Amino acid sequence: MPEAVLCGTKTTEQVVAIVDELAAITTEPRLLTRLTDEQLAALAPTVVARLDDDRLSQTAMLNGTLPQRAGRVVVVAAGTSDAAVAGEAARTLTFSGVQCQTIVDVGVAGLWRLEARLDEIREADIVIAVAGMDAALVSVLGGLVAAPIIAVPTSVGYGVATGGTAALHSSLASCAQGVSVVNIDNGFGAACAAVRMLSLLGGPAS
Amino acid sequence: MPEAVLCGTKTTEQVVAIVDELAAITTEPRLLTRLTDEQLAALAPTVVARLDDDRLSQTAMLNGTLPQRAGRVVVVAAGTSDAAVAGEAARTLTFSGVQCQTIVDVGVAGLWRLEARLDEIREADIVIAVAGMDAALVSVLGGLVAAPIIAVPTSVGYGVATGGTAALHSSLASCAQGVSVVNIDNGFGAACAAVRMLSLLGGPAS
Amino acid sequence: MPEAVLCGTKTTEQVVAIVDELAAITTEPRLLTRLTDEQLAALAPTVVARLDDDRLSQTAMLNGTLPQRAGRVVVVAAGTSDAAVAGEAARTLTFSGVQCQTIVDVGVAGLWRLEARLDEIREADIVIAVAGMDAALVSVLGGLVAAPIIAVPTSVGYGVATGGTAALHSSLASCAQGVSVVNIDNGFGAACAAVRMLSLLGGPAS
Amino acid sequence: MPEAVLCGTKTTEQVVAIVDELAAITTEPRLLTRLTDEQLAALAPTVVARLDDDRLSQTAMLNGTLPQRAGRVVVVAAGTSDAAVAGEAARTLTFSGVQCQTIVDVGVAGLWRLEARLDEIREADIVIAVAGMDAALVSVLGGLVAAPIIAVPTSVGYGVATGGTAALHSSLASCAQGVSVVNIDNGFGAACAAVRMLSLLGGPAS
Amino acid sequence: MPEAVLCGTKTTEQVVAIVDELAAITTEPRLLTRLTDEQLAALAPTVVARLDDDRLSQTAMLNGTLPQRAGRVVVVAAGTSDAAVAGEAARTLTFSGVQCQTIVDVGVAGLWRLEARLDEIREADIVIAVAGMDAALVSVLGGLVAAPIIAVPTSVGYGVATGGTAALHSSLASCAQGVSVVNIDNGFGAACAAVRMLSLLGGPAS
Amino acid sequence: MPEAVLCGTKTTEQVVAIVDELAAITTEPRLLTRLTDEQLAALAPTVVARLDDDRLSQTAMLNGTLPQRAGRVVVVAAGTSDAAVAGEAARTLTFSGVQCQTIVDVGVAGLWRLEARLDEIREADIVIAVAGMDAALVSVLGGLVAAPIIAVPTSVGYGVATGGTAALHSSLASCAQGVSVVNIDNGFGAACAAVRMLSLLGGPAS
Amino acid sequence: MPEAVLCGTKTTEQVVAIVDELAAITTEPRLLTRLTDEQLAALAPTVVARLDDDRLSQTAMLNGTLPQRAGRVVVVAAGTSDAAVAGEAARTLTFSGVQCQTIVDVGVAGLWRLEARLDEIREADIVIAVAGMDAALVSVLGGLVAAPIIAVPTSVGYGVATGGTAALHSSLASCAQGVSVVNIDNGFGAACAAVRMLSLLGGPAS
Amino acid sequence: MPEAVLCGTKTTEQVVAIVDELAAITTEPRLLTRLTDEQLAALAPTVVARLDDDRLSQTAMLNGTLPQRAGRVVVVAAGTSDAAVAGEAARTLTFSGVQCQTIVDVGVAGLWRLEARLDEIREADIVIAVAGMDAALVSVLGGLVAAPIIAVPTSVGYGVATGGTAALHSSLASCAQGVSVVNIDNGFGAACAAVRMLSLLGGPAS
Repeated sequence: MPEAVLCGTKTTEQVVAIVDELAAITTEPRLLTRLTDEQLAALAPTVVARLDDDRLSQTAMLNGTLPQRAGRVVVVAAGTSDAAVAGEAARTLTFSGVQCQTIVDVGVAGLWRLEARLDEIREADIVIAVAGMDAALVSVLGGLVAAPIIAVPTSVGYGVATGGTAALHSSLASCAQGVSVVNIDNGFGAACAAVRMLSLLGGPAS
Repeated sequence: MPEAVLCGTKTTEQVVAIVDELAAITTEPRLLTRLTDEQLAALAPTVVARLDDDRLSQTAMLNGTLPQRAGRVVVVAAGTSDAAVAGEAARTLTFSGVQCQTIVDVGVAGLWRLEARLDEIREADIVIAVAGMDAALVSVLGGLVAAPIIAVPTSVGYGVATGGTAALHSSLASCAQGVSVVNIDNGFGAACAAVRMLSLLGGPAS
Repeated sequence: MPEAVLCGTKTTEQVVAIVDELAAITTEPRLLTRLTDEQLAALAPTVVARLDDDRLSQTAMLNGTLPQRAGRVVVVAAGTSDAAVAGEAARTLTFSGVQCQTIVDVGVAGLWRLEARLDEIREADIVIAVAGMDAALVSVLGGLVAAPIIAVPTSVGYGVATGGTAALHSSLASCAQGVSVVNIDNGFGAACAAVRMLSLLGGPAS
Repeated sequence: MPEAVLCGTKTTEQVVAIVDELAAITTEPRLLTRLTDEQLAALAPTVVARLDDDRLSQTAMLNGTLPQRAGRVVVVAAGTSDAAVAGEAARTLTFSGVQCQTIVDVGVAGLWRLEARLDEIREADIVIAVAGMDAALVSVLGGLVAAPIIAVPTSVGYGVATGGTAALHSSLASCAQGVSVVNIDNGFGAACAAVRMLSLLGGPAS
Repeated sequence: MPEAVLCGTKTTEQVVAIVDELAAITTEPRLLTRLTDEQLAALAPTVVARLDDDRLSQTAMLNGTLPQRAGRVVVVAAGTSDAAVAGEAARTLTFSGVQCQTIVDVGVAGLWRLEARLDEIREADIVIAVAGMDAALVSVLGGLVAAPIIAVPTSVGYGVATGGTAALHSSLASCAQGVSVVNIDNGFGAACAAVRMLSLLGGPAS
Repeated sequence: MPEAVLCGTKTTEQVVAIVDELAAITTEPRLLTRLTDEQLAALAPTVVARLDDDRLSQTAMLNGTLPQRAGRVVVVAAGTSDAAVAGEAARTLTFSGVQCQTIVDVGVAGLWRLEARLDEIREADIVIAVAGMDAALVSVLGGLVAAPIIAVPTSVGYGVATGGTAALHSSLASCAQGVSVVNIDNGFGAACAAVRMLSLLGGPAS
Repeated sequence: MPEAVLCGTKTTEQVVAIVDELAAITTEPRLLTRLTDEQLAALAPTVVARLDDDRLSQTAMLNGTLPQRAGRVVVVAAGTSDAAVAGEAARTLTFSGVQCQTIVDVGVAGLWRLEARLDEIREADIVIAVAGMDAALVSVLGGLVAAPIIAVPTSVGYGVATGGTAALHSSLASCAQGVSVVNIDNGFGAACAAVRMLSLLGGPAS
Repeated sequence: MPEAVLCGTKTTEQVVAIVDELAAITTEPRLLTRLTDEQLAALAPTVVARLDDDRLSQTAMLNGTLPQRAGRVVVVAAGTSDAAVAGEAARTLTFSGVQCQTIVDVGVAGLWRLEARLDEIREADIVIAVAGMDAALVSVLGGLVAAPIIAVPTSVGYGVATGGTAALHSSLASCAQGVSVVNIDNGFGAACAAVRMLSLLGGPAS
């Protein structure tokens, strides 16, 4: 499993201390998630120089990525507004050595756009479906794809969609069978779940 | 607008008194909704003889229906479990003199079933979409149909879907533009909204 | 249906990229909604020069409006605090080629103010009722007007009215029959629902 | 203040024991509220004979009522379904020696019915407004009447109105100034609040 | 009833326009509530010169106060943190011509402090109880005082007390009989309710 | 710590099997909690004969009680309706070998009743405060007593008090310092917390 | 994927009709879930004779099971009260041709019981963790096992655990990385998610 | 009990006035909690010079600490993000004269880290468990330690963990017996509860 530091819930002082120590003591790959602009700006330039940073997804990789592993994941996002969360998932997969592709703007209100990409999606071993608002994309994908589907509800939206609970509940109550779900905006967790599943590609445990 | 008595929130004694009085003083059509089995059993046989009763939708018409009016409504329901609420909508439309058709079991997990019925649905002036759980049917229909769409979330389901709030929020946050929504399980209200809209078929007000 | 870009849930970088591309590739009318001051300020002056922008409603039209169509909508708002949401509805209607009128400050605590405007309201084909707090305006209008009524609850208010859930629930539970509802603050969605309904003015579909 | 026993949250055994003891030790008037049919049936016939019981409001008076006092209260209920709660308020007022009148079925969807009773309502010293669903009656009354208004939200309804929270929030967020509110279904509490207020009829405290 | 403008839910531009117009067209007393520092700073100096402004309660009176009227109200607040809301109530009463006194820091965790002030409190015609967190002050006062009690829950607090719902529910579920409640932080509404009640001091309506 | 079986969340078949097995294999004291009437009736007479059962608290002791230990706990309940939960706490303490006393009907609306019992309460090592509705008793006790206080919110009540969340939040947000809280209706857990604390009577751990 | 009929949200009449039709037209395996005792009793004896029914899990298999497939799943349940939901998962797996084992009563309050079974758990390809109340089992398993983990929160419990939301939120917010979650009590959905994942045992899709 | 001023819910002006007065009139130790950076900056330098301030926990001691008392408390925190709340508890204990130790980063996803510190934890008289997200640490500690355990849920987290309700509910529904809980983020309250309990070290009250 990828080793990561969730920066968003820590103070800038705490993040600086942790990253400084990591940079000093290890050459193993480490992932920073939810790294705020303020936290990034507070890091020493010598540390920043060793980071592979991406501002849209607020992720940074220290000491490169983990070794490549078998399998391929597609991250499907309903709209542009979900791109940051989709990015967190995709970057975590890349960090974990997993080949992945991101497909955005395939919300079900324009079903033909989703259908146009369906062949690509079906070629993946695992589908991560990122969707806010009504999260209808999750159920439609669930009916069209036989692979494991991991839903990531997003907090994008307003009114009843504020905070992402509507998308979460819609995903959990999906009429499609066998979809599993992670916490709202948890692109990192979805990627970790995918990594767990990809270990099955090696065959049965016993 | 149809004149109706919502029986479900009243005591059996209150319903018996109201219906007895209606039967005595008017020959105009009246609709009873949410008429429970217990309430029905408490009515006088002479009153029951004058009712057109339907147990699945818990509706009963007294003194027939209102005159036929222009327009056609299709009531689309995601699953068998939504049939009672769909029935309340359809029966209210029939009572109101509106031609209607009901299409059941077209949930989006089996998208092909919905697509097979799409031509029929597109022939309607108004679509009432009845759906519980994730209510993904509402958004998919919203993207496929240009007519007015009235969503009726249902309380069918368990876990996060209990009580219908998940379906309600999903419908309100639909990624399809211009869907409007009524209260959970309110098939009657959806039909009334349709009746309001059908008056537009006569041309502009001014 | 109007083609629109919901800017409020996107980053400034995303909005600039989308609007730049739209300005480059199309001369068709496009609507920007929830365009923040910061996003507007980040757009190129040559793009801004082509926008019809309104700051109260945070909407901007690119390449003018859609062709005029039949029908007339009145947007009724309970108070001054609801003017921004009412403005989003009215601007979307104007963009869609629909004639509309806005009537503000007719809350039911001063019933005589509403009654003074009732004749104007009754002349409309469709009524959009914008109300926060108790949303009592929705129910009173529902009893006084036979036309379709689309309620837009607003997030205006404090205490139990914070976020608009009180107004939403009040609208959905309206004692007036046949009112339909859109998401909190969704003036755009209400206008889209009206556009769907206005297509009925041309007569039955089949 | 009236002395009362809230029976509904107690076991039948507890209620029987309490009422037996009251009947044995006091000849002062006592009020039983939320007395269930099962609890009533478990009381000794000799005790029941001393009760003035009303099944709709589930109240029973032991040893008559308190002495008459000055002032007059009107209890206004939106619909038949609210009659039980309105009855609890009216019975508590009667028990407390307060003159009261009950006006039912004046929901704002039929505003003319309310206006027809407005003169009667304005003659009262205090108005208790009992309403479920959207509780729009509370705000309309608040704008039309200058007397103190005590709102009692009711749990009548379904969907978002289930349990009465929608009516509670609507009452608390009323656009009419100076309405105060008691707990959902708390007709007894509204009557007690009225009794507190009626003591002002005797003139300033100091 | 006092005429007031709720500024907090309006834009600065809207408030400036409304207050400018009021200053131009009327010499009657008007109250501004929830007037933010930014809104105050945007008003013209000539208008500000005519205001009696208080920053703790965010209230400003234009054109003085209404005429004195009979009766006396005491505003009791549990802690210093509730002083702003208590101030809104007290300032509204003063504006309305009502004599009032404010007693702060009498939370029930130090019951002796409340008991030391009990005689003063009992001399009032009406008690407004302002309390956040557990709002236990409301119930204790309700048991110790026979006068009308209006509870104002406050949004002061953190964790489960965030937003004031805990205090609101505690006040509505008070074990003391006949307490009535207004919206969270609604000091203005509590004062208006008191003004309604004080009209009873003149004797019965009919 | 006491070993107990929570029966209320198990099927009757499961409870019968578990208790049969316990009766067969151990002579150590075991406590059954939330044992429903139906479950009790399904137990074999020979097993029932070995139980010390109490129907109000739905507890049953198998094989007597644990050895007596030092310390004394008082269980204080606001009203008769809280007696079942208070009983669960008291019975668990008795089972655990702890001396305890129960004081009921000392709600803060009648503060003098509580004050009359204050000396008894202050003699306890630990106070368990059982209260529903507003749970104001918890805060008042917290201010009057220096000993550890464990609050048990109860689900007694209606409207906003339904289910006990109001009492829970009020207890957690208590203005009295150092009160700790257990789950709604969890008299058993409060007693277990008291047992943990009583071990301190033996002096510091290290 | 297994083909199933969710009976619990349908009327008895609907279930009888659906099962009768299935029995008549197909010899393919079908699974009935949430089949209530009343629904089972209403089925024709000839149909019941063809069912493999299990009352604890409320599941029935018509026409046997699907063919065996590779892989092994372990279903871990925190307590006896979770056995019905665990049973629904296990029975669905068996129906789907998947080898599975169920381990019950390994809640983390007795960590040693879980550790005693850890070797068995680690031999599985996939772990389904069934837990109500605090669902702490999910996080502990997540830290101890590298295989995919599917959490099924259960509605077992009382107070804040009522309905299962506490367990759901705890599972979604698990501090262990890469756990995915299905709806409350959805043992069937967890098994379907496992079936999707087991298809990976055959190697990468492309 | 420690005397403290909760600064976070007060205005800067109020805090300055209170602390100025305390500094002038008493030489007794006083604790300031939730003292914001802005409030600290507004205090007079002569007052600040007398404070023992800690920015991570936002606490400041005026006039030193209370006298040492018997007993030892360990504060256990799941992660770095919980350190501020753990600090508030530890600083309050130090202020109260209680010996305490803080152990951080022992979340249950890495069970071995917790087990490595178990001996230290078991040497304490009381354990304060600080945990956000799933709060699984509370239940695991509850099963491993016999001493009193006070859980402090934290608001650390996102999605369903936002605000700390998930951690609160998980703590209250803990499968470990006899854990008691304080409000979200209430490190101060947990320390006060510990102080109450430590008084038991002196032996039974009577």
